[in-house]
Parts: sequence; C-alpha cells; structure tokens
Amino acid sequence: MSRTLPSDLQATLDPSRKSWIDSANDPHGDFPIQNLPFGVFSDARDAATRVGVAIGDFVVDLSALAGAGLLTLPAGAPADLFAQPALNGFIALGRAAWRSVRVQLSALLARDTATLRDDAALRERALVALKDATLHLPVEIPGYTDFYSSKEHATNVGSMFRDPKNALLPNWSEMPIGYNGRASSVVVSGTPVRRPNGQLKLPDHERPVFGACRKLDIELETGFVIGRGNALGEPVACAHAEDHIFGMVLLNDWSARDIQQWEYVPLGPFNAKTFATSISPWIVTLDALEPFRVAQPAQEPQPLAYLRHDGDHAFDIALEVRLRAEGANEATTIARTNFRHMYWTMAQQLAHHTVSGCNTRVGDLMGSGTISGPTEDSFGSLLELTWNGKKPLELNGGGARSFIEDGDELTLAGWCQGDGYRVGFGTCVGKILPAAK
Amino acid sequence: MSRTLPSDLQATLDPSRKSWIDSANDPHGDFPIQNLPFGVFSDARDAATRVGVAIGDFVVDLSALAGAGLLTLPAGAPADLFAQPALNGFIALGRAAWRSVRVQLSALLARDTATLRDDAALRERALVALKDATLHLPVEIPGYTDFYSSKEHATNVGSMFRDPKNALLPNWSEMPIGYNGRASSVVVSGTPVRRPNGQLKLPDHERPVFGACRKLDIELETGFVIGRGNALGEPVACAHAEDHIFGMVLLNDWSARDIQQWEYVPLGPFNAKTFATSISPWIVTLDALEPFRVAQPAQEPQPLAYLRHDGDHAFDIALEVRLRAEGANEATTIARTNFRHMYWTMAQQLAHHTVSGCNTRVGDLMGSGTISGPTEDSFGSLLELTWNGKKPLELNGGGARSFIEDGDELTLAGWCQGDGYRVGFGTCVGKILPAAK
Repeated sequence: MSRTLPSDLQATLDPSRKSWIDSANDPHGDFPIQNLPFGVFSDARDAATRVGVAIGDFVVDLSALAGAGLLTLPAGAPADLFAQPALNGFIALGRAAWRSVRVQLSALLARDTATLRDDAALRERALVALKDATLHLPVEIPGYTDFYSSKEHATNVGSMFRDPKNALLPNWSEMPIGYNGRASSVVVSGTPVRRPNGQLKLPDHERPVFGACRKLDIELETGFVIGRGNALGEPVACAHAEDHIFGMVLLNDWSARDIQQWEYVPLGPFNAKTFATSISPWIVTLDALEPFRVAQPAQEPQPLAYLRHDGDHAFDIALEVRLRAEGANEATTIARTNFRHMYWTMAQQLAHHTVSGCNTRVGDLMGSGTISGPTEDSFGSLLELTWNGKKPLELNGGGARSFIEDGDELTLAGWCQGDGYRVGFGTCVGKILPAAK
Repeated sequence: MSRTLPSDLQATLDPSRKSWIDSANDPHGDFPIQNLPFGVFSDARDAATRVGVAIGDFVVDLSALAGAGLLTLPAGAPADLFAQPALNGFIALGRAAWRSVRVQLSALLARDTATLRDDAALRERALVALKDATLHLPVEIPGYTDFYSSKEHATNVGSMFRDPKNALLPNWSEMPIGYNGRASSVVVSGTPVRRPNGQLKLPDHERPVFGACRKLDIELETGFVIGRGNALGEPVACAHAEDHIFGMVLLNDWSARDIQQWEYVPLGPFNAKTFATSISPWIVTLDALEPFRVAQPAQEPQPLAYLRHDGDHAFDIALEVRLRAEGANEATTIARTNFRHMYWTMAQQLAHHTVSGCNTRVGDLMGSGTISGPTEDSFGSLLELTWNGKKPLELNGGGARSFIEDGDELTLAGWCQGDGYRVGFGTCVGKILPAAK
C-alpha cells in the first residue's frame, strides 16, 4: 500500500482478519471480510428488495441489522435507508457514511465479535444464503457514460477498421475519449440478453438489409459508480476525482459489430449498444480496493494540466472472460487480462467528463471501455480475440467461435489477489437469446 | 385535418372556440384555449412546484383545480398527482388520462362555462399570472437522445467538414441517425449557460490547448417527450409510435464546435454538448398539434419496412432563432424555418431507437436534430448560417456574429399558425455567461 490510510479503514483491510462466517475465510472466495461489497437483494422469505453486503456464501441484510440497532448512521438518515430497492439513498449520505458502515460491518463480522455471531435469532433474520438470494440492479442509474481508455483496444480496433500504421487517432492520447451510453438498458448480471435486430450493410448489397445481428460481441469492462455528484458548471478536479467514486463493478458492454460498423459515422455507436449493458450485482468500494492500488502506465505525451494527478490511480484487478455454449459441460476461458493496463485512470475520466461543466449525479455509471492487454489472449472482445472473425477461437469440448452464438453464456469475472485472500467482484453473466422474429 | 379525430378532442381544437380569459383570445398569443400545454411552476405565494397549464397570460394550477374537485381523474390516480415537481406521474397515467384532462380543462376555460369563471375565490387560487410564475423543467428525464434528421443540416455539415460532392453519408438516407445525449444537463429555458472549457486543436499547434470554447453555437431543434415507454426487447412499431409520444418542446442543443471537431471521431460528440441543453417549459401535446399535421417530405430510397408508416407524420411548426447582444435594445431574428422540412419523422425516430430492443421510459426526451430549411436564412445553427464563421451575420443595431459571444441571449420560438389563432410553444431562452477561469 503506497499511502497512509486512516486507522479504522486500515484495520478492515488487514490480510490476517478473519470472520466467524467460515466461508468468508476461503482463500479463493470473492467475498472475504476485507471486501464487503454493497448490493440489493430479495429472497423467497421476503420479496422486498433491500440493501445487503456480501460475505462468504451469505448476504448480510443491512435493513435487519439497522432494525436491530446494530448500525449507527449519521443523524438525519432515514429509518428505511436500507429497506430500499437501490443504494442511491445510502450513497448520497457521503463518503464518511460509507466508510463508517463498512467499518461497523467489519467489526460485527470479525471472528471475535459475539454480538451477531451468538445471537441465533438475529443471525437467522440477517443472514441469507447467497444461493437463495435474488440480486437486483444495485443502483438507479441516472446517466451512463462509456469510455474507450485501453490503448491496446483502441490500437487493435484502429488497425482493423482504419489504418494499421496510424491506428491510434491523434485525439486518443490527449483525452479519455468517451460517449454517452443508454442508461435504461443497463441490466444486472443474470438477465438474459436478446440478440438485437438492426440494419446490416452486407458487402455484396447496395443497400442495408434488416435482420438479426451476425457479429454479436462482448466488451470486457469495469464500471465505476458516482458517489458524489457535481453541480452543473462546477468541474471535478482530477486530484479530487476519486472522492466522487463510490465503487466499481464488472461491466459487459454487449456490442453488435455489424450494426455498429454501418451506423457509427459520424455520431458514434447507438443501436449497436443500446439493447443491453450488463453489470455485476456487487459494488466493490474504493476503500476495499485500496490495497490493490498500483501505478498507471506512463502517459506520453504528458496530459494537459487538467488531466494530471500525482500518485497511483490504477488498480490491480485480474479479469477473465468465459464462454459456455448451450448444453456444454464446461466453459472456456477466452481472455485473461488486468484492469491495471488501462491508459487513462478513472480519475482522469471523471475530470475530463466534467471539465466542460457537465454535471454528474449519485448513481451515474461510468464504463472503462474495453480492457485489452498486450497479448493476443488478453483482448477484451471477440472482435479482437478472433481478429474480426478471421481467427476463430477453439472451445473446450469442441466447436469454435468467431462471434457469439445463440444460447452462449458469457461470464466476466474479476478479483484482486491478496496474500492468502482475494477481493472479488463475483461474476457478470449473460446468456444470449435468439433475436425476435 | 386529414384524419378523423374523436369528437371530444375535435371540440377542443375548434378554431372558433374562445375562453373567458381574454388574453387567451389574442390571435398572436401562444396559449389560446386550443393549446393548453402542460408544465411545472411555482410562484412567490407558493414555493411548491406543481403542475400547470398555460392559457393566455396565465398558468392554471391543476393541483388547485383537482383540490376543488373540478378534475375527474382515472380511478387509482394519486391524490397529489398535480402537486408534484414533474409531470412524470401524470404522464404515466396514459393517453386516455391526458386527453381527458385536456378536454375537461378546455370545457372549464371555455367562454360560456361559469364554474371557474364566476368563482372569484377559486379563480384567485387557481390562476397565476405567467409573469409571476417560475417555470421549472417539466419532466424528470431518464434518458435523452438526439437525432440528426434534417437533410439540409446533414448536407451542410457534410459539405463543410467532409466532401461537398458526397456530403450525405450513405447511412443517413437509410435510418434516422441518432446518439445518446446527456440527460443530467438538460435545463429549462431561462437558465444561464456557461461557455464551456475544453480541448481545442488550433490549426497552428501540434497539440491541443485547454481553454474556453471559441465557436459556441446553438442548434435549433424540437424535442418530443415519451408518454408511454416500451419494455426491453419489445420494439415500438412505426405505425404505433405516435401513441408513445406525450408532446413536444423547443430544444436548443448548445454546441461547442471547436471541442466537437477535435473529439468526435470515432465515438461522436461528448463534451461539445454535455455542458447544457435547454428546453422550453411548456409541453405542447400531440393532441393540440393535430390540426397542423402535414405530409413529411418524400423519402427516397423507400425506407426499410420497419421505418414505414402510412399517412401524415410531419407538423407545420414555424420556428425562429433570435439573438440579442448584451445591452442591445432589440434582438435580431437570425433564422426562420419550419419543422415540416424534417426528413425523418418522430415516429420513425422512435421505431429506429427501439428496433434493437432498446427500452424507453416515461419522460425520455428525444431531440429532432438541428432543423435547417432549404434557404440560407433558414439554417438552424450559426455554423451553417455563417458557413463556419466565413460569412458573419449582421445584427440589428450594429455588430456582427460568427459564433456566440459572452452576454448574448439566444431565443428559440415556435408556433403553429391557425386561422385567427396560433398554437405556440412559447420560447426557449439562454444567455451565455463567460467561461469559468
């Protein structure tokens, strides 16, 4: 860890910390006591959606803990803060409240704390097995923006569709290029995704035809969730931008490459991406990611002043993409990469987004852009992995893929590897349904 | 009128209909009894934002009328439906409710109806002078999409920035090109607009510089507001698309041309447009626009099947842009055009937007794209009016403009000209503040 953290936060991150929930101490589990990601869930016992935190194989029901008087909240916080269908109300309380709740939970769940551990009746109410929980979209998303911040991805795409010798456009190295996405169609992991119909321009046709996308693809991304907005006309300075971030999720920016290719000039991708964007259900807080903070890649040329920050602003997050064909016994891991490769940091993305005066709001989602690494097996899209279909991928158990086929289930996974534990994101899963007739 | 309308609606549109509110009978006023546009307002007497309808020089307070039992609402409608800071709750009740409320208001405000006319106490509560009302953003906007549907505008821009011989890109004639805008920065008319800062690529510099936009522009547009959403995966058919539209507003898509020029390839405009989008405060219902329905321009080539509709789907809406320099006594009308020139209809825009399966929600705002007519004085942006600054516009009272200067006040106005009355949109006004230091 490269910087001094407050001692209460530091204690929650101690690698040796254990929980009285045994499954939280599994060194390969995503949700140890060091993580404590926030989400929204319901279950068969109680259909009301409410706020929970994942630990081991369980969800801790924060509305139950608060109801039992075990969570101290800021004065004025509404009594039903955690009995909500989205985290926005909690997030709006601000960073001190997020940290305080996380610190209190870490204490309650620590091996030697008897309060909840030894209260069987409360435990019964407050702990729900993850396998019995239905996970919902964790936040109401007022705005969704997607960036394009992997140099390797931008170079690959530029090489394929423009000019391999000048693959990176001149503006790319000067700013985190981004565009407005469609917030309405952001769905939680597990939601099936229907293959879109649209206009396809086939090489042997003078006019486009209407039909089902033939080049359906994933984009392996992370997303960050705005925890503190900014007013119209008041940009967020790069040095303070991380103070505005609540946490991170995995994000699959489903993309119809053929629709995109025909529609995207001059105003950018639209129908190629508006049909669905999947995110993982657990928001991993920036606090939980602190031990995995690393230096971002060197930036050359040096960015303009409004995009400069001191210190380390990348995070060491291992990422994988898995594809399982309909009926297949096993999935094939088709890509392995790491978030630390990203050229532009989240702080730079947010500073750029707001430098015009644009306002952001609590719950806004900002996608990283496709995360591609330097090697051919580390690319974050099938477009790159198969080089636009020219080099199909072999699947375990037979078969091959240029692009996604109906019935394929795509899974993104991500985790930070600690010493004897991992801080994981869980998975972001989507299965493809055939296009509407 | 080219089609048969229900008789209750027909009666509200009768050109000879008059109101007991004298100012509503002014043949040059925007808000006769035939219009009855919906908005949200507050006033010095009551700071609570509530739903109102404009008539003549007044706002009718619908929460007061409903409180007095003068409006019949569908069973189950919440009692505080009109005591809301946005129209979304009312709009969500559906088309039958919008029409019913409009029909009831038309009857209450008709010259010969004594109920409100002769009830001084209720009139005092329910009528607020427009000049004393503060008008707010009429809807909470979950998503904002902007189209690019004027052939003249697309041709002008393509001529300037690409190739005059092939000004229209091949995809333009096949689909209503659109992109996702930024909903957070949509502001109501009258909100000052701060000139954005951003990256500018000057011709004599190798790298971009950071600074205030030097080519600040308007885009004269209309917008439509979604009145009925569609579920993810369930496209809206073109033939039924108008059933999903609540009404229309004027929209100014403020644009920083220099920021746009440098950032927009390959993902489209971003910071060049996210700093502010202004809309007029009154939503004119599609019902009120029925008498002004006209044929859209002929479309060649014939659109693909999913973009076809029978009948007339354009509207005859006269539009003007006025510029008043700081301290000037009078404004200069710098453009006059008409919405009927638009190549793609609102119905086609919505059908295209959702054909991928993309969902829309009540309150979503859809911009038409810059509305340019066929003549040089009918272009909807300074970019076109001054041909990228090469032909500055002369202002009344002296001075000239290539692009917008600090202190300039820009006003969009729009109305449908009836026989002895007009159904107007009011104005959409924004004054430019200097860039932040």
